Amino acid sequence: MSPSPAPLRVAVVGAGAMGSDHVSRITRRISGAEVTAVVDPDSARATAATALAPGSQTYSSFEEALDATPIDAVIIATPGFLHEPVILPALERGLAILSEKPLSDTVESSLRIIEAEQRLDRPHIQVGFMRRFDRGYLELRELVEKGENGALLALHCAHRNPSTPPNYSESALITDSVIHEIDIVPFLAGEPIVSVEVKKPRRNSLAPEGLVEPQFVLFETLSGTLAIVEISVNIQFGYQVTTEAVFESGVASIGRAETIQVASAGTLGQGVTPSYKERFGAAYDTEIQRWVDAAARGAIDGPSAWDGYLASVVADAGVLAQSTGEKVAVEYALEKPAFYEAGASLTSTGA
Amino acid sequence: MSPSPAPLRVAVVGAGAMGSDHVSRITRRISGAEVTAVVDPDSARATAATALAPGSQTYSSFEEALDATPIDAVIIATPGFLHEPVILPALERGLAILSEKPLSDTVESSLRIIEAEQRLDRPHIQVGFMRRFDRGYLELRELVEKGENGALLALHCAHRNPSTPPNYSESALITDSVIHEIDIVPFLAGEPIVSVEVKKPRRNSLAPEGLVEPQFVLFETLSGTLAIVEISVNIQFGYQVTTEAVFESGVASIGRAETIQVASAGTLGQGVTPSYKERFGAAYDTEIQRWVDAAARGAIDGPSAWDGYLASVVADAGVLAQSTGEKVAVEYALEKPAFYEAGASLTSTGA
Amino acid sequence: MSPSPAPLRVAVVGAGAMGSDHVSRITRRISGAEVTAVVDPDSARATAATALAPGSQTYSSFEEALDATPIDAVIIATPGFLHEPVILPALERGLAILSEKPLSDTVESSLRIIEAEQRLDRPHIQVGFMRRFDRGYLELRELVEKGENGALLALHCAHRNPSTPPNYSESALITDSVIHEIDIVPFLAGEPIVSVEVKKPRRNSLAPEGLVEPQFVLFETLSGTLAIVEISVNIQFGYQVTTEAVFESGVASIGRAETIQVASAGTLGQGVTPSYKERFGAAYDTEIQRWVDAAARGAIDGPSAWDGYLASVVADAGVLAQSTGEKVAVEYALEKPAFYEAGASLTSTGA
Amino acid sequence: MSPSPAPLRVAVVGAGAMGSDHVSRITRRISGAEVTAVVDPDSARATAATALAPGSQTYSSFEEALDATPIDAVIIATPGFLHEPVILPALERGLAILSEKPLSDTVESSLRIIEAEQRLDRPHIQVGFMRRFDRGYLELRELVEKGENGALLALHCAHRNPSTPPNYSESALITDSVIHEIDIVPFLAGEPIVSVEVKKPRRNSLAPEGLVEPQFVLFETLSGTLAIVEISVNIQFGYQVTTEAVFESGVASIGRAETIQVASAGTLGQGVTPSYKERFGAAYDTEIQRWVDAAARGAIDGPSAWDGYLASVVADAGVLAQSTGEKVAVEYALEKPAFYEAGASLTSTGA
Repeated sequence: MSPSPAPLRVAVVGAGAMGSDHVSRITRRISGAEVTAVVDPDSARATAATALAPGSQTYSSFEEALDATPIDAVIIATPGFLHEPVILPALERGLAILSEKPLSDTVESSLRIIEAEQRLDRPHIQVGFMRRFDRGYLELRELVEKGENGALLALHCAHRNPSTPPNYSESALITDSVIHEIDIVPFLAGEPIVSVEVKKPRRNSLAPEGLVEPQFVLFETLSGTLAIVEISVNIQFGYQVTTEAVFESGVASIGRAETIQVASAGTLGQGVTPSYKERFGAAYDTEIQRWVDAAARGAIDGPSAWDGYLASVVADAGVLAQSTGEKVAVEYALEKPAFYEAGASLTSTGA
Repeated sequence: MSPSPAPLRVAVVGAGAMGSDHVSRITRRISGAEVTAVVDPDSARATAATALAPGSQTYSSFEEALDATPIDAVIIATPGFLHEPVILPALERGLAILSEKPLSDTVESSLRIIEAEQRLDRPHIQVGFMRRFDRGYLELRELVEKGENGALLALHCAHRNPSTPPNYSESALITDSVIHEIDIVPFLAGEPIVSVEVKKPRRNSLAPEGLVEPQFVLFETLSGTLAIVEISVNIQFGYQVTTEAVFESGVASIGRAETIQVASAGTLGQGVTPSYKERFGAAYDTEIQRWVDAAARGAIDGPSAWDGYLASVVADAGVLAQSTGEKVAVEYALEKPAFYEAGASLTSTGA
Repeated sequence: MSPSPAPLRVAVVGAGAMGSDHVSRITRRISGAEVTAVVDPDSARATAATALAPGSQTYSSFEEALDATPIDAVIIATPGFLHEPVILPALERGLAILSEKPLSDTVESSLRIIEAEQRLDRPHIQVGFMRRFDRGYLELRELVEKGENGALLALHCAHRNPSTPPNYSESALITDSVIHEIDIVPFLAGEPIVSVEVKKPRRNSLAPEGLVEPQFVLFETLSGTLAIVEISVNIQFGYQVTTEAVFESGVASIGRAETIQVASAGTLGQGVTPSYKERFGAAYDTEIQRWVDAAARGAIDGPSAWDGYLASVVADAGVLAQSTGEKVAVEYALEKPAFYEAGASLTSTGA
Repeated sequence: MSPSPAPLRVAVVGAGAMGSDHVSRITRRISGAEVTAVVDPDSARATAATALAPGSQTYSSFEEALDATPIDAVIIATPGFLHEPVILPALERGLAILSEKPLSDTVESSLRIIEAEQRLDRPHIQVGFMRRFDRGYLELRELVEKGENGALLALHCAHRNPSTPPNYSESALITDSVIHEIDIVPFLAGEPIVSVEVKKPRRNSLAPEGLVEPQFVLFETLSGTLAIVEISVNIQFGYQVTTEAVFESGVASIGRAETIQVASAGTLGQGVTPSYKERFGAAYDTEIQRWVDAAARGAIDGPSAWDGYLASVVADAGVLAQSTGEKVAVEYALEKPAFYEAGASLTSTGA
């Protein structure tokens, strides 16, 4: 047998909740990788994260880390507007890149990123749409592909959070939350989104002042599949992400509670997960392990920067639809480059 | 104790599937009533129905029945456009009236009916919106009224039929099928519908040629509760009517499968009801028993002709919304007359 | 058509919770019958029950009622040791008889009853094992009969009550509670019980002083099907009756919660029924309606006195097994008389 | 930060289904370990397994591997009677040891193993009872410990396999299959098993000739909790492991199907896992990762050899109970040594 490869040396940029979770994940559960650098301008956060990864060092900037230590790969877990300044130098060095969603904060920036990436020999960027690694969504996509129940006609999606962090804005409903459905709807339907419209029902009085939610976001895909997404972000009772798919001759649903069932005091109940960490923990583990494994063989194995670009175009249209109340057509300036076809993994979707 | 009252003598007009079912129900399961007349111009159907009710006679018209035999009450199970010619003479004679939905086929006809009824001392007409007697809907309404989970913000409704009868038209999606949600949404929300809009996703290729379905019908109520109704009428696998209610701090759902659960050959499965008869059989029984009991004391005990009128106004707007693709405001020409307040049962809803 | 038959005139003997429930049921929901007499030595209870049935009268004894008013049928809802004194004169008069379980309190008394009944031309007694009319049990029996999953090998039964009435004794676990499984196990298996054994786990400290429960009762049927019945009678949270059937190539279960599902405060829960009235209300309605309908044509339509006798033999063995801790063989002194074969309804089971 | 530790070098002994699965798991999903040696006298199997682990080598015996390459830890996945010859030399060298269940094939051998282990400074052996790492069982144990529903009175366990491998014997029902419940029942109850009894219902005709199954195994724990275990090993439809716990004031259940739910052709169904690999895959991953992590700090983190010894004593009694049909008392020759208290992990249970 060939010798066992050296572990992938990973820099994690952004040591907030998501970044720290990845530091811990790679150190404790992922095979073939180790965190060697944690980058955060907030040195206390960076130090706390390195404590989770023996052998890692803190850095205040990505450039500083690149200069100080050998790095094979980078996970970017900062706010979206800080992604491009990390991705571009990482591409120049040919690193394996895992960018948390969104790829970037604007369509223009996303375009710059995919242009830069296409100067390389193959895709280097994977975007952190972890739902593509969730067992339920994979089973649902398999059901669509098998076609046993006919074509997919519609999707009822519910995306519910118990409460919002400070400074969460109305546009964040689209760009931070529904962005997951913006990626997963084409993944399930096998074709791109072509329009978006937003409906605003009675406001939840438990939402922070000024935040108008829940909202219902309606997406149409190329051949007319209609996805209706309920986004509720202050619904208190827990974190719940469900999808019901309507086929020509059947219905399928995923995401209902699945923990211990207890009959007590007049109720037969099951727990609801409190956050995305419990609901999608296994999906994150699979995502990162497959990214690490793919990096070892010079590939990506999940949604590409192209998928990130597509999502940014739809999100832009969604924010416009929020403000106008009208149905907004989604127009993609580019056709999918052969570059992304060639490098496409099984889990990638074309426009 | 007072002597036991004589049974209510009921004429059933229309001996199709629904009418025959009522003949059988009253004869076999309802206390305090008996079918004495079955009216249908098709004498074979009428004869078949009377075979289910010992002591009943067939008549080719309602007038003929009225002349021939004493009648206390009438159940109308003909197509909607034939309701008014039965209701008006029944009102003149002061009979207890159970009109299957819809009250009538046009708003104008509905208006004539409620005008005629108001010449009497009290409401005599009950409309067959049987969902108001279904355990699930009643539990859901109770949850709304208790307010423990905050205000009702939205409703996801799915209304699925395995296949359509001959001559089922696109407008029938609204007037025959979604008419149930048109009644139940205000019943649950406690306030009237104020707008309606229709979305048409990818067409089900299993639908009869020319029928564009499924459709999604969006209703707003007075304070902004948004109800999204999926109507699928050729979905093959069974009859399924579900509702998920979104509250400010919780979610509730009704209508999932509830029969024996069998693990066999790789699947853990439950039966799905094949038709409305199984799904709502208990609700129909309760509806008719309560109508019979109320008739004995000179009252109705369920949705009134006013509710039937309101539904006809919304259905009209819905059919317009189907053809225009626009959001259509629902405008009620009348305010609710005191006549209907006074006679209102617990299960009646005002505009 | 033939004239509608006169309603069955029913005497209800015993005006406690069960008897009153039947008075109300017949008056309000059953077609073709009316309660004309309520018999109870406690005149206040009798009067309260007659208030539920217009036209009925109170009597302090069954004989008094028989002398005073025409009676076609009798429902017996007294404690078991008082059944025989009502059944014997009712048989003499050829009345239709519905005896609540058990048929009687001893095997000897049960034998006297079936001997007396066999002097008539056909069975007149039906025993109130209402589970045979429950949709779940009927679906389960159908599954056994169809044989698609092979032979029935074992049954896991759980019978849970929130709390016990005063004076509930250890033997009542068998004679009042498990008596339902004693009837339903042969009904499902299609063959008689041949042995019984009792296991006593750790005692529930919430049970009344001196009552040793829960208990597990193990039944074997003729060809070896093993039924394990958990009887818990102070389990607080609600009333729950479930059965899981183990087949050669599959498993089926019935009786889980089936009301509205609510996600709230970290739990996704469904209601549990508080008592047998909610859990088996529909089964009681069907039972009584079918008994009334059968009486009109001179028949019974449900478990016969023979089934009642069989249950009393098993219950006797069960009480012996409770005290000895040993497996007790069940020995039936009689073979099934042709009398009960001839009159057997579809829902009757032979030994 | 301290430097990242070198990965644990693991030898896997036994390259059958279970052993190969561990080779793949460690290579692809476990952090901090690598498979360096695969031991199997069948060189084809060994070679197939090394293909899953780059850098690993095949050996025909454990001694050969020890001589040829540095080894830090060993996973033993051979049949039980071959465990002792690997465990004893591994203990001599102070390796971290993960023995698949059972610890050994006889009580005597288990005793020799724990005696040998106690000559070391601390426990080195962890036994592969992976259910202790399953989310459902952990939630159930937490519920027992919290005591909110009162004491644990009884457990209904079902352990179902679709079919048996060749040469599976009646005693294997206890020693290979129910051995998992033999470990998990004390884990849940917090106290040891004190008796065992076996009931044999009607035989499954789909079982191989001569194999009498299903069987029901009844365990009592020290304070009287009764666990009833259905073991069915040719039930065809899938692999299903469920537990329902009866508390003084509530009931809890785990292990029902939890994949995508599909309504199609009259059924609302969920998939059932085909084997233990899918049902307990996540538990195996957690088990091995925690064992690797503990080895790095010189500890075990799961059931110890003491737990393995306890299980062997109960299994012995179970096999005796199978043949005698009597209740057999379980007698432990030893009290728990302080050696195992000191090293006890959170997931270890005392006698």
